[in-house]
Parts: sequence; structure tokens; C-alpha cells
Amino acid sequence: MMTIWYGGDYNPEQWPREIWDDDVRLMNQAGVSLATVGVFSWARLEPRPGEYDFGWLDEVLDLLHAGGVRVDLATATASPPPWLALRHPETLPVTENGVRLSVGSRQQYCPSSPVYRERAAELVRRLVERYADHPALELWHVNNEYGCHVSHCYCEVSAEAFRSWLRAKYGQIDELNRVWGTAFWSQHYDSFDEVSPPRAAPTFRNPTQLLDFDRFSSDELLACYRAEVAIIRERSEVPITTNFMGFFKAVDYWAWAREVDVVSDDTYPDPADPDSPAYAAMVRDLMRSLGGGKPWLLMEQSPSAVNWRRRNAAKAPGQMRAWSYQSVARGADGILFFQWRQSAAGSEKFHSGLVPHSGTDTRLWREVEQLGQELALLSARTGNEAIAGSRVLSHVAITLDWDSWWALEQPASPTDVSYVQTLFAWHRALTSLGLTVDFVRSDADLSAYRIVVAPAHVAASDAQVANLAAFAETGTLVVGFGTAITDENLHVRLGGYLGEPLRRALGLWIEEFAPPAAPDLQNLGSGIPPDVPIRGDIFGGAAAGQVWAEFVRVEDAETVATFTEGALAGWPAVTRRTTGSGAGWYVATLPEPDALRRLAASIALDAGLELPAPVTRGGQVESVRRGEHVFVINHGEEPAEILVDGTDVITGAPTSGMRLHPQGVVIIATAGTP
Amino acid sequence: MMTIWYGGDYNPEQWPREIWDDDVRLMNQAGVSLATVGVFSWARLEPRPGEYDFGWLDEVLDLLHAGGVRVDLATATASPPPWLALRHPETLPVTENGVRLSVGSRQQYCPSSPVYRERAAELVRRLVERYADHPALELWHVNNEYGCHVSHCYCEVSAEAFRSWLRAKYGQIDELNRVWGTAFWSQHYDSFDEVSPPRAAPTFRNPTQLLDFDRFSSDELLACYRAEVAIIRERSEVPITTNFMGFFKAVDYWAWAREVDVVSDDTYPDPADPDSPAYAAMVRDLMRSLGGGKPWLLMEQSPSAVNWRRRNAAKAPGQMRAWSYQSVARGADGILFFQWRQSAAGSEKFHSGLVPHSGTDTRLWREVEQLGQELALLSARTGNEAIAGSRVLSHVAITLDWDSWWALEQPASPTDVSYVQTLFAWHRALTSLGLTVDFVRSDADLSAYRIVVAPAHVAASDAQVANLAAFAETGTLVVGFGTAITDENLHVRLGGYLGEPLRRALGLWIEEFAPPAAPDLQNLGSGIPPDVPIRGDIFGGAAAGQVWAEFVRVEDAETVATFTEGALAGWPAVTRRTTGSGAGWYVATLPEPDALRRLAASIALDAGLELPAPVTRGGQVESVRRGEHVFVINHGEEPAEILVDGTDVITGAPTSGMRLHPQGVVIIATAGTP
Amino acid sequence: MMTIWYGGDYNPEQWPREIWDDDVRLMNQAGVSLATVGVFSWARLEPRPGEYDFGWLDEVLDLLHAGGVRVDLATATASPPPWLALRHPETLPVTENGVRLSVGSRQQYCPSSPVYRERAAELVRRLVERYADHPALELWHVNNEYGCHVSHCYCEVSAEAFRSWLRAKYGQIDELNRVWGTAFWSQHYDSFDEVSPPRAAPTFRNPTQLLDFDRFSSDELLACYRAEVAIIRERSEVPITTNFMGFFKAVDYWAWAREVDVVSDDTYPDPADPDSPAYAAMVRDLMRSLGGGKPWLLMEQSPSAVNWRRRNAAKAPGQMRAWSYQSVARGADGILFFQWRQSAAGSEKFHSGLVPHSGTDTRLWREVEQLGQELALLSARTGNEAIAGSRVLSHVAITLDWDSWWALEQPASPTDVSYVQTLFAWHRALTSLGLTVDFVRSDADLSAYRIVVAPAHVAASDAQVANLAAFAETGTLVVGFGTAITDENLHVRLGGYLGEPLRRALGLWIEEFAPPAAPDLQNLGSGIPPDVPIRGDIFGGAAAGQVWAEFVRVEDAETVATFTEGALAGWPAVTRRTTGSGAGWYVATLPEPDALRRLAASIALDAGLELPAPVTRGGQVESVRRGEHVFVINHGEEPAEILVDGTDVITGAPTSGMRLHPQGVVIIATAGTP
Repeated sequence: MMTIWYGGDYNPEQWPREIWDDDVRLMNQAGVSLATVGVFSWARLEPRPGEYDFGWLDEVLDLLHAGGVRVDLATATASPPPWLALRHPETLPVTENGVRLSVGSRQQYCPSSPVYRERAAELVRRLVERYADHPALELWHVNNEYGCHVSHCYCEVSAEAFRSWLRAKYGQIDELNRVWGTAFWSQHYDSFDEVSPPRAAPTFRNPTQLLDFDRFSSDELLACYRAEVAIIRERSEVPITTNFMGFFKAVDYWAWAREVDVVSDDTYPDPADPDSPAYAAMVRDLMRSLGGGKPWLLMEQSPSAVNWRRRNAAKAPGQMRAWSYQSVARGADGILFFQWRQSAAGSEKFHSGLVPHSGTDTRLWREVEQLGQELALLSARTGNEAIAGSRVLSHVAITLDWDSWWALEQPASPTDVSYVQTLFAWHRALTSLGLTVDFVRSDADLSAYRIVVAPAHVAASDAQVANLAAFAETGTLVVGFGTAITDENLHVRLGGYLGEPLRRALGLWIEEFAPPAAPDLQNLGSGIPPDVPIRGDIFGGAAAGQVWAEFVRVEDAETVATFTEGALAGWPAVTRRTTGSGAGWYVATLPEPDALRRLAASIALDAGLELPAPVTRGGQVESVRRGEHVFVINHGEEPAEILVDGTDVITGAPTSGMRLHPQGVVIIATAGTP
Repeated sequence: MMTIWYGGDYNPEQWPREIWDDDVRLMNQAGVSLATVGVFSWARLEPRPGEYDFGWLDEVLDLLHAGGVRVDLATATASPPPWLALRHPETLPVTENGVRLSVGSRQQYCPSSPVYRERAAELVRRLVERYADHPALELWHVNNEYGCHVSHCYCEVSAEAFRSWLRAKYGQIDELNRVWGTAFWSQHYDSFDEVSPPRAAPTFRNPTQLLDFDRFSSDELLACYRAEVAIIRERSEVPITTNFMGFFKAVDYWAWAREVDVVSDDTYPDPADPDSPAYAAMVRDLMRSLGGGKPWLLMEQSPSAVNWRRRNAAKAPGQMRAWSYQSVARGADGILFFQWRQSAAGSEKFHSGLVPHSGTDTRLWREVEQLGQELALLSARTGNEAIAGSRVLSHVAITLDWDSWWALEQPASPTDVSYVQTLFAWHRALTSLGLTVDFVRSDADLSAYRIVVAPAHVAASDAQVANLAAFAETGTLVVGFGTAITDENLHVRLGGYLGEPLRRALGLWIEEFAPPAAPDLQNLGSGIPPDVPIRGDIFGGAAAGQVWAEFVRVEDAETVATFTEGALAGWPAVTRRTTGSGAGWYVATLPEPDALRRLAASIALDAGLELPAPVTRGGQVESVRRGEHVFVINHGEEPAEILVDGTDVITGAPTSGMRLHPQGVVIIATAGTP
Repeated sequence: MMTIWYGGDYNPEQWPREIWDDDVRLMNQAGVSLATVGVFSWARLEPRPGEYDFGWLDEVLDLLHAGGVRVDLATATASPPPWLALRHPETLPVTENGVRLSVGSRQQYCPSSPVYRERAAELVRRLVERYADHPALELWHVNNEYGCHVSHCYCEVSAEAFRSWLRAKYGQIDELNRVWGTAFWSQHYDSFDEVSPPRAAPTFRNPTQLLDFDRFSSDELLACYRAEVAIIRERSEVPITTNFMGFFKAVDYWAWAREVDVVSDDTYPDPADPDSPAYAAMVRDLMRSLGGGKPWLLMEQSPSAVNWRRRNAAKAPGQMRAWSYQSVARGADGILFFQWRQSAAGSEKFHSGLVPHSGTDTRLWREVEQLGQELALLSARTGNEAIAGSRVLSHVAITLDWDSWWALEQPASPTDVSYVQTLFAWHRALTSLGLTVDFVRSDADLSAYRIVVAPAHVAASDAQVANLAAFAETGTLVVGFGTAITDENLHVRLGGYLGEPLRRALGLWIEEFAPPAAPDLQNLGSGIPPDVPIRGDIFGGAAAGQVWAEFVRVEDAETVATFTEGALAGWPAVTRRTTGSGAGWYVATLPEPDALRRLAASIALDAGLELPAPVTRGGQVESVRRGEHVFVINHGEEPAEILVDGTDVITGAPTSGMRLHPQGVVIIATAGTP
């Protein structure tokens, strides 16, 4: 069914029975089409070991079905009931400092625990038996936000599982010794029995041990997911998902995305942070990319305020709607919320809901109704005019690899670079030019792209290095600082970093790092300044490099910009080399935002990509083409004037000259115009 | 005996015998009338289990008695000897992270420990047997600063005690499930055995569990206190106290105040903090209020510097005297210090004493002598002229409830409001107008007051809501933001917060919160600003609201001030409604100090309260009437000129036109003039 | 052999065999004369309990010997292999919070563990047997950086060892009670069995317990060192060292320095911090002083960046050379590095090496070669012209005592003074005048000095007080604030601090402390300001005192400067008293740097010390005389012009008028001119 789903998490077990009818009535009033049920219901479904109570859930599903609301049914395994901890305290997770976490919160289970896994499996078996054929069932929702609070467990059960994982990976202990570099600091292991999770230690822990533990931890959670999926698949063909959490470091979503039928995402940008729209745009693009371009679901966002920041801003009038359309524009076929009715008790009672504490005579409810009506209108469009199911086309991609994320942010690194902030800087620069950007694995097939940017891809395997270098033969490869310093085992690529294929493709090698001083040292009388001045026509003159700098030794490349001060003065900051029909750029620092935008524009032009014309005059506008529609959203505080000819599919009005207010959205049917 | 006591903690066990005679001589020289003895003497009184040594204490009490110094005798249970931990390690307290705390410091006991309680009871029994009839005995001093370092213990003994407390409160586990809202996050308990203290957990813990654990922890300490009191009362009619610690979050002093014969308090304002005099004034008013207006004892203050801040400022010349008179002005009948003779060793050796390290040829000792002489003079006043025993009259009260304090500052709240800072803002505004302010429980009889302010009373029971609403019929009720959002179980009051009676009394309901952004986000280009601009004639125009803001829906009230910018523009900030002969004000933000002062003045005038005329020209002056005397204290750095006709009871001089230097104090006998 | 060693840590076990030949070739090319081998080789030398593998180390030593490189052979006990923790988990250290630290890092052993000590002893025995007579052996290198990550262990094994240490020190528990002042807070112990290490406790722990635990912890590490030395000495006469770490708080290097044959040091100043050259100069002076003036070895420094700061700056071109010569100038006869070849894996792969990742066609390698050639040239100078073996002469000393360091920085102190920052302020002021400064114990023979400065020597024994006071009879004693407040047991010196002999020598006593407010309180409207204004001709007028201030009662001294504001206004800030042929100065605050420099100059002149004439015009120049040579180093960013007549021993050029570039060094043979 091609549609744009609307709805959210529905937790009727928190409310008396008489509210349930009102819920369905209001859902209909608001146009809700999909409700996620049962996410935290384990303790209600199995109030004591082996005793199940499904009656209330039967009733909920029947009520929703009668009301025409489809169901995304959760497997309810995200938080075990307190009886599990009482009977099996070893299922409780343990921190790296040895603190065993307690009940009374959520997600208190060790992902490697066989006891937890068995009890979860049994619950899923019962649920699937009972509801696989329920007519309301639209989607299976496995567990919830895997790893959100407990992604790494350091207990003895986890330790034993880690050893098994290592045995399977390395076979012989000497291979582990080689890969982990245990010749350093007398860490040589004589047997797998001697190996531990990277628990609290006197000082820096072995980097490859840390990285393997990150991989193991992601794998253990994935094993939990897979076990539930296998049980569902025995009885049900209904699609399965589990909700991702945007750029979530602990879990390698590339591996997971292969195993979900539809990608779904939870994101909660801070309404008080002016960077939120740009950051959220990046998250939406990731979700689309994880699914290989297929439509995805915004599984959770907040109607207004959340409850877990220090100060939780309400969304401004219109902001919920504007941010919802951002997701649709970037490929979402569903706008869902946490949660339907704001809780009256518990830790999330101050998290907003579609039905607020103060009821329906409220600004928030009126916005909920409006959005529901609009999405119904948009869902009704079919064929060439359809929005649901249509695709977003990108000519540009940024590489994203969890290994490099984990590696770059390890302690004992040259400097404290944030991987995601580095990706964000590039994404924002490219997006601000009107380009739509995908994320790709660095070892993926890159042939669909004209430009591929690989920023801070620090831990690159030989295959990844070769894949990137090969792309430069026909496409435009942009390599950012810090790339391919090591291989996937965190062994340094000697002789100038980068690895031979990239060295040849870019025509250069890296001699030494020169990270600028930390901002808190910026007022010192001497030393290295926090920004590294750079200069190049490409920047229109002088600019600042941030975060990182390098001594680059050019062998066969054109220097496009140079560092201008201090020890780096005169050394290349940005280079370019032509290879076959492609090009290889190298950027040895992170240019400040304006400079990076200019650099990105030059690269795009050089790659023969035409930059879209401005769609508005004024405003802080985000513009995205999805299929035959252009979405324009004004995130700024001033109105904008639309310059595009077309029709607003919500109002039916012609768009050219239209005034777009702050938080305003227009969806322009362009009838094939670019 | 009507007197103003003078003295402090006396720890002769830290000194060789020959010093003791000198102590009594110097006490007499300084006018010391009361000494607190034995607070940390358990290890000396019972050097090994069951072996008691009272000989030295006999001698100390006899010496003091011979010197005419009365004794406040401690029960010595505040810190068990190390032998207890060696024999019963389970008596040591445990943190929420599972760290068992060690000996070598103080207060290392689990308040729920039966072993600790038994050993403490036996010690008290022996002390009471021995000293109940000692002629020096004036007061019993139970334990010391209950909960100061260990207020919440998470050990298994505490866990079992907590379960018993819950069983007694809830009877059935399903009632606990209902009240705690365990339908949320799969927290449903099948039996009390599954419940734990709120130990470290993956994320936010259950709010009502946290609140009940706060109540339980306060109750457990109170049970310790009561057990000692019961033993004393079997043998002795001498009054009993235990020393409070001002606004101390962990212990609900309303419950405790009912059980002490005289309220006593320890406070240590920072001499380097210019807010200290105003804050200390609030603390004094709390102590008076806890005792229902009866005289109280300043049990501990520092003669000069303390030792536990990062930098410990000495008191300026005169500051110790000025702050002492602040306590007398606000109802204290005793000025006592920690401690008599500054320790030569141990963790508090850098905490000042009445007899400093450097001896008696010192500024500090001369101030100690002067104050002692003056207090003797004041104590001698009797009848109509008496200060000791006289009362302070307040027409204004601020509500204070520990449940709301605990609830407001829980994690996962709309924003990070400080309960005490909010009370302080109101107290300071009212006090600066010359009004004297009491604190009251929100469910107390309020009929003695003309104005009652209820700020941020977030967790309000139905009875409390009704009590406040009823007051608005005849008095002036001022409700501050964040009030009655939930009931006493932290279940949200649905349909607009506040609860029906207050909604009617104030003529409004609250639709949504809009907390301003955190100060560290204030330089962002957009988003919600850290202050919310408001405007109203009541403020003389524009002003700033801080900390919190709300969307207020007026049904039947006059809007006195409005928000002027952003999403809140045009919404009410301050409202007023007349009810019978009373009035109900609502204040939806925290106006900045000057604005709050103007608002408070308007409210007072509106309530028919006449504001006192200024008592000085110049200076930063605190002025309080106690009985027939007006105390004027200059906390500023410039001299002030007294405008009041009367007689300075210390010097006998006429006061009108008198010059009051910085840190100067004048006590004016007004012979009935206002 | 009189030489200036050149080389560093060599870890061939991290590299394949084929690299080893290249290593020796490059060592010869760079002039490397000494390599430290085996520091972290335990797990390779004893891959499983009792099975030793020395073959690879035989080959390494033979190769080095064949290449003419001498060997500093480590005992390899700094990090036990993982098999030890698996078989003896009780050897793993425990934090004060009870967290047992894990393998996978380094130094994971409890220093008191008998099991660790036995296994370490057996390894040393084997190493000494095998290599005592190896022709390459130049030096034994015991363990590594004792205490760097685990200096204090709180496990039960350590607790038992601590009790034994206390039994040996105090004999009877009552003596411990007296010294620890356990009459305070009911801490009286009935037996040694009741005593613990100062583990996490409810609040401040007993100060003398803390201090004794600091002493015990330093002693336990020293016992480990001594045990290894004893084994070596049974078979070998080759000199022994262990590498110190500059001003390292956890270990009392005065006690250790007596037990090493040559002092050696590891220091890693931050290249991005402009204070680094001055701070490093102080560290070099400490190392010379620890050895009683004998030449010492710079055992470790970084060729360029380190890896453990948040941002790790590369050394500027020339900076490695300039800082190396600073060590030679201040008495070092060896410039060694961590490490020879930069690691390709492990936690320190981003720590620079003499052979960088990027190879020998690099700036860094060229600087390594240049310095090696120059040091060979300097090593060749013999007789009167020799640099190696020559001495640095100091007329000025600063006292340094670990007891006072530990005591001053305890919690519950008057303020948060840093001991080392206080010493640094004085060292920098004196050094900036061209004076060379030694460090001394306050109970050492001081007769070699003209001026002795005792800053913040808070915990001074009677002997130390008497020694300092006696020095004032003939020399110039300068006592800084905070001195002799307590004795060595942390019992306060009553009656005015300082102790009687110093009181007489200085003609004053201290009545009270008045620490200025913390900098974060500096914008308060009143209170004590963060700086205390002082005034005196000695400062050329007004200046600021920092960190500390006192009320000083002068009995018999001249007031040289006074405090000018607030409560301290008119009180003495600096005093001077003549005693015999000596003088006693007292400085009751820390004058700001410029003022302290002027004060230091006045004191020097008053003491009859002639200040050296400037050696340059311009530049930020450090100038030190060692034997017959003057070293001049330009740490600034502008060039300097040399004013000294002489010959540059590197270039042979005359030095007068020579231009010294930033990071430039000139070593002037002065032929006996001053």
C-alpha cells in the first residue's frame, strides 16, 4: 500500500479502559493510520514467569482495527519485567567499572545473556502465534532502539561471549596477538581465556581490543534482533523493522539495514538549536541511504518538547509540521511520533504527546489535526503525481563507516575530532548548494555518483582504499584529512599514510599531523593557533582551517590552496589531480563553513554538476526534490518569496511569487521541470 | 530560663587535660553560657564493644558545672567507632553505584542497620542513666546533622527496609504499581520482593520510586532520632533537640520539627558571597517557622572561615557579630558556634574556632568577647523589655513542601529549576520591602496570613490544592509557575494542570510549558532566548522573565503583564482575579529581581498591607522587628544613617541620626512605635 | 665514559626481524649511542608462567653491539603478562572506589602484591644471569615510570601491607591514635586491624591517614625497586637507574635518588604551551638537584607530538633540538627519546618516534640526524673544554618536600593552592634574572647556598624548622606563605603558626589566613577580591598578590610591602629582618609574576648576589652556564642578538653580534669569562 503513514506509539496499558474508545475516536479525527503497540508491554503480557495475559492486547488490536487504524506490533522485548532480575540477577548489565545496573528504569539486560534471549524468544513465539494473522497487523516492530542505554556490557557472561566471538574471528590466539599488536606494552596473550572486555584499566586500553569490542557489541545486539526475526518469519510474511536512532555510534546500521524490511528512525532534534534543521536533514539522508533509496519511516519524533535535555524547549508553532515535511521530502513514507497520548506518570510524562496533558483545545492538537489532513491529501496522489513511493536522486555521496567512527574517536588519537561533526560539515556545505547527498559505505559500488567525499575515514581496509582510488578514475573523489591512516585493524599505513592506491590517485602522501591547539589554549602568547590560516582562489582569498592540519607532500597534483602561517606556512591545504576522466581532491584541514561551501561549489562545478538555481528570495530555506515534487521549507525567522513555477499541492495555488512564512512549507508539483 | 545562650561545640577529648581548666576560664571570660559536649565521642566512650569509659566525661561536665557553664549533652551516636565496621561491615553505607563507604571519616553507618541502631541505643541508655540528673544538663543533643553525608543508603539491608516501608504504605503490590505508574517501561512488579532502591540503572529511574525513596530515607533517619528520644524520655524531662541544617533537601524538617522540643540550626553562609546575608535571613525565617514561631537556637555557625569550600574566606571584622544579630532578630535565643577551640589536627583543623590557633591576642577573640558581653546585656532585659522569648510577627508566608522540592529537581523534568532558588527569589523580594516572611506547609492553617505565596509547588495533593484555593477566598494567594502540575504521587493533573480548585480560584489553566533555553545556548542565532521578555504596568514597563515560562489560558482573570516576544508574544505572564474578599495571582515565569520586587510591592499594596517606612538613609540594610525591638544591620560597604526614633539598647544612645558603619548593628527599643 | 648519550627506547619486538638491520643502520646514521631495550617485554620473555624465551633478545643485543650501540637494559617488570591476572586476579590493583582494574592496558599490578613481586624477582634473576656480562650492557633500567598509572592501591593485600607499615611505624595503636588525631570525629582505633587505606568514605578522610598512605604508597614502590636492585647487584656492577617523571607527586624522589646510580627523567612538555620552556627548565634543575649536582640522563622526551593530550601539537621546527640543549645546559649527559621507531599499532602509535611513520625523507628525521651529529661533536670535547661531566653551579635553592606537597593539596585546606605552581612561580622569577636554581630538602645542609627560598612548606618538622631558621643566621632565608603551619604529622603549630625558631628568625607570627576569593567569584559586588592589592617600593609601587594572604603580626622585622585594601589594609605583605650575617624575609602572598621578579631581584641584591648581565638583545632567551660554557636558547618568536664574547662550539664562529633565530641555540665557550 503506497501511503504516507501517520500516527505513533500507542501505550493504552498506561490508561484506564474508558480512555481507549476516546483514543480511537481522536485518532480518526486526526487522520492517524498507524499505531505502534506493545513496545514496553512485556511485564503486562507476562506478569510472572510463564504466565501470559494477552486479553487486553486482543482488545486493543480489535479496537484499532475496528477504527481503521493499522498496527505496528512490537515484540515487547525491549525491557524485561522485574521478575527476571530477581530470579536471574546475572541478566542485569554491568558497566566498565563493574557496576551492575538495576531494575526500575528500562533496557536492563545483558545483550549476550542466554537467559534473556530465551525468555525473549518465548515471548515473541507467543506473540507471533497469537497475532500473525490479526487483520490490523501492518508491520512487526522488533524490540526498541537497540543499544540506546546499554550498548556495551562488561559482565562475565559478556566476557565469555566476547571470547567466543574472538575465537571465531581469529582461530588462533597468535593471530589475535598480531592483529591487536600485543607486542606493545606486554599485552601478549597465551590463550583466549586471558582476554577480557576492555574494562576499566590503569590507562589507555588496546585500540584494536576496543574496536573489536565495539564490533562484538553491535553484533550481539544484531544477534538478538536476528533471533526474533527468525521466530517471526516462521509464521508471518508481514514486513519487519526495528527503529534506528539516526547517527547512533554503538550500532553499525549498515549491517542492520540489510536485515530490516523497511528502515525506520527515531530522531529528536533540539527545537532550541538553530543547527537542528541542517543536522536533521543529514539524518533523513542517512535513513534513505541505509535502505538503498527506498522509502523509510520516521518512526518517532516529538510533537513538541522532549523530557531528557537539561532544558526542554517546546517546538515553535509550525515547527513540528515543517520538520515532518523535511522527512517526507527526503524519502519518508510515514510520519510517526512518540507518543500518541502524553503519559500522566513515569519518566516520560514531560515528553509531549499528540494528545497533550491539557487536551485537544490546544495549539498542539490543532497542528496534529492539520498535518493529518494534509498527509491524507498527499497520500491520495497516485501514479505520476504520487509522493509516497517516489524516490530522491543524489549525484553526490559521503562515505560513512562505523569502523572509522569508532577508531577516530578513540582516546590516544592525534586530536579530538568528532566523526559525525566532520561528516556534518561536508553534508551541510553540499546541501546548502541545493545538492542532495547520499551516504555510502566506502566499499560500496560508487558508480552511481558523480562525486564521492571520504572525510576522516581513518581506518580503511585495503579493499576500501582500492575502491575509493578506483572511483577517482571516472568520478570526482574528495578525500578529507585523516583518511586511511590505518587499516581496519588500526595498524598504521607506513610510508606516508593513505595507502599506495590513494597515494597514486591523489598524487601525494602525508608526512606529519599538525593539529591546531585546543580552543581553550587560544589566548596563549605563542603555540599553534586554534585555526590554521589557509589561502586559495577557491576560497576567494584567506580562510581558516579548523580541527586538523597536515604536512602534505605533493608528488603529482595541483595545489589549490595553501596554509599561510606558522610551521605549515607554504604547505598545501587543498590539492587536485586529474585521473582519466575523474579527479582526486585532497583537503588537509576542515575549512570553516563558508570556505567549505565555496570549496564544495568549486568541486561540483569542476565535476560538471550543475548547481540548482535558487528556489526563493530570502529566508533560510531548505529545498529538496523528491520524484516530481520540490519541497521548500523555511527554517528561518524571515519570510521567503518562492521563485519556482509550479503548483502547491496542498493549496492548489501557483507557487511563483508565493510568500513562505517562517516554518512554512510548500510542495511544488513541477511537472518534470528541474 | 529566658536567656540568649552563647557558646558552642566543646570537644575536650581532642586536648590534653591541662587545657580544660584554661577552657573554662576563657569561657567565663567570653561569657559562654552553653557548651555542646560529646558529639563525636562514641569511640572514646565505648573504646571497644561493650566497654564504656565515662570518667573523662564526668570530669568535663563537673568542670563546666563548676564554671557555671550549662551543657547541651550529645548522644554521641553520629559516628560509630571503627570497631563496628570491622565486626559488622554490613553497617557501612553503600552508594547508588554499589560502593561501600569506609571508616576514617564520619557518619559511616546505614541508617536502616539494626546493628547500628542497637549499638546506638545501648550507648544512649548508658549516657542517660549516667547524666540524666547531672546538674549541668540543660539540653539533650541527639546525634548530629542527620543525613549530612549519608542520607540515602542503597545496601541490601536498606533495600529490605525499603520493601517493608512500601508494604506498610501500599499493602498490595498492585497499589504500588498503580501509584508508581509501572505500566510505563514494563516496570510492573509481581511482588514487593522484586522492588529495589533506585540504584544505578540504564537511564531515568521511576519518578515515584525516587520520591518514595526520598520519603523513606527521611523516615529512616527520623526513626533513628525517635528511638533515641524514646530512651531519653524514659529517664529525663530535659528538653531535646537535634541540629538541623537550614534548607537541607534530604530530610523533611516539617516532620522532624514536631518531634524536637526546640528547633536548632547549623548554617555556614560564605563570607565571600554577597548573597549570603539575604540567604541566611531566609534560613533564620525557616527555623522560626519550623518551631511555629517559638525561639530557636543557632546551634552552629563559624567564628570566621570554614574548611570545606574550595577557598575559605575569613569573616570580615564585625561580620560574625552582624550575622549573629541577624539570627537574634529573626527569633533565635542562642548564638552557638562550631567550635570552641580550633582543632589542632583532623579534617576540620582549618575550620575557625572561638579560640583560634593563634590564641587570644587576636582580632577574632576580641570579637568573641565583645559579642558575649553584649548578649549578656541583652539577656538581662526582662518583662516588656525582654528580647529573649519575644516573637516575630509575619503577615506573609511562602509555602515550602519537601515533596515538591524532591519532585521539582528530579531528572526528566521540563527544565532545571532550583526549588530553593525559586523560594529565595520570592523571599528576597518580600524581605527587601521590609516585610517579615514565614514559611508554611501548603496544607497548614493559613488564616493567620494576609498573603501566601506558593512558588513551584509542583507535587500538590488534592488537600493542598483545596487549602490554597480556599485561602484565596479571604486572603491574597500568589501562585508561582510550576505549581500543582502533579499530585503527590507525581501523576499529572490532566486537562490544564493546576487542579480544578486552583483553576477556579485563579480563573485560568496552563496549556503548555515553554522553558527558555539554557544560558549556555544564549548566543545562538535563533531558538528560544534565555530570558523571556515580559511587560506590564506592574513592572513599570518592560522586564525579563527567567527560568520558566508557560502558555496560560485565562478564563476569568485580569492580565496584569504579558509576554512580548517569540512564540509566547501576547500570552499572559501575570494575572489577578478577585475572589470574595481575597485575590488570586498567577505568575507564569520568574521575574528578574527588580521586577519581582515591584510585583511583590504591588501585591502587598493590593492586599492592604502597609509597607514599613525606610529605617535608614543609605547602606545595604536589613531591618527586622522582633517584639518591641527593631534590629538594623548594615551588610553593605557604605555607612547608613538611622532614621528611627528610639534607643540603642546596647549603647543606650538615641538612634535617630545615628551612623551605622558597615557590619554595624543597632537594636532599637521602640517603646511600641511601629 | 664521559659522553653525551644519544638514543632512546628501542622496542624491536613490535617489528618483524627484517626491520632490525635497518634499525641499526639508521641508528648509526643518526649517531645513536644508547638504546633502552626490553621495557615492556615481560610477556615476550615469559610467554607463559615459568617458560622463558630470551633468544630474540640475545639477537637484539648482539646486533646493537655489533653496530656499536650501547644498551640500557630494562628489567621488563613494568607490565606483567595477562596470564598473571588470569591465575592471580588479586594482583590487579583496586581504586579507592573498589574498582579492580583490568588487563589490556599497562602497569596492572598491586605494588604490595607478594605474587607480583615474586614473579618479577624471578624474571630479573633470569635476565641478570643471562646479560650481566653482555658486552653491550651500559646501564640497568629497573621497571619503568614507577607509579605512573597506579601509585595507590586500595585492595585488601595493600590494606594488610599498610597495616604492617603502620605497626612498624607506630608500634602501639595508641601512638597512631595520637598522631592521626583520632579523637576527632570518633575515629579512635582499638587495634591496627580496624585501620583501612583511605577508601571512599562519607566525607573528608583523616588527613594524617591520607598522608601516611601517600608515604606508604611511595615506600611500597621503592621496595619493589630495591628488590630488583638487590638481585642485580648480586651479579653485576653496571650502573642502575629507573626513570623519574619530573615533578611527580606520588613518589618521593628524594628517597629514591639515594638509590639510583644515575638520575634519569622522562618529560613531555606541551609544545603548544608557551610556559613549557620555563617549566621544563625547572624540571631539569630538579633532576640535577636530585643527583646532588651530578650529570643526569634525559631518559625520555618526544621527538615531536605525544598521543595522550586532548590535542597533541607537533614540535615546531627546531624545537626538539632547542629543548634537548636545555637539558644539556642544565646538567644532562644524555638526550634520549621515547621511542626509536614510531609504533604501527597499540595505544602509542600516534606518539612520535625518531623514525616516523612516514620514513626518513622527513623534516623530523633530518632534525634527528643533525642533533646526533652535533652531540657527537660536543661529546668529543675533553679536559677543560669538556661539556660532558661538567657541573652547573647554583647559589640559590628552593626547598621541595614531598610531605608538604601531599599535605598542601589535601582537601579541607584553607584554599586550593598548587604546590608545584607555587614553586614554579619562584623558580621562574629567579631564573628570569639569570640565576641558576637548585632544589633542596628543607632538612638538607644549606651552607652551599646564599639564598634559600621555602615556599608553602606547610608540613614542617621541628628539625626542618630549626634548619631553615639556622640558615637565616648566615644566609638569606625567604619564607613564603603557608609555611610550617603544621608539623610533619599535620598537627597545627599553635600560637601563631611557623614554629618558634622561624618566628624568632623572621620576627613575626601569623594570626589568621585570608585567602582571596576564587576567580569564579570575582565579579561579585562585594566579598574578598581574587587578587589582594599590595604596595611596596620593592615592587615599584602597587602590585597584586595572588592565591593566598595572611594577617602577619610583626614583632621584630621591617615591613617592606603592605596590603592596601579590604580587611587586610595596612597589614604587612613582605617583611625583612637581619639576623647575624644573614637575613630572613617573609612573603605573605604570591606576588604576581612581574612583582615577584622584582622582589626576587631585590632579595638577590640584598644578599650580595650579582645578577648576570643580559646575554642578548631581544628574543625570549634562556641562558645557563654549565662549567666553562654558556648555553643560550631562544624560545621566542623573534630573533635575538648575542652580546657575549666567545666562540660558538658548534660552528666555531665568534658569538658577539651573532643573530639567534627562534628555536636557535648557541653554546659559547667563554674561556673562563663569567
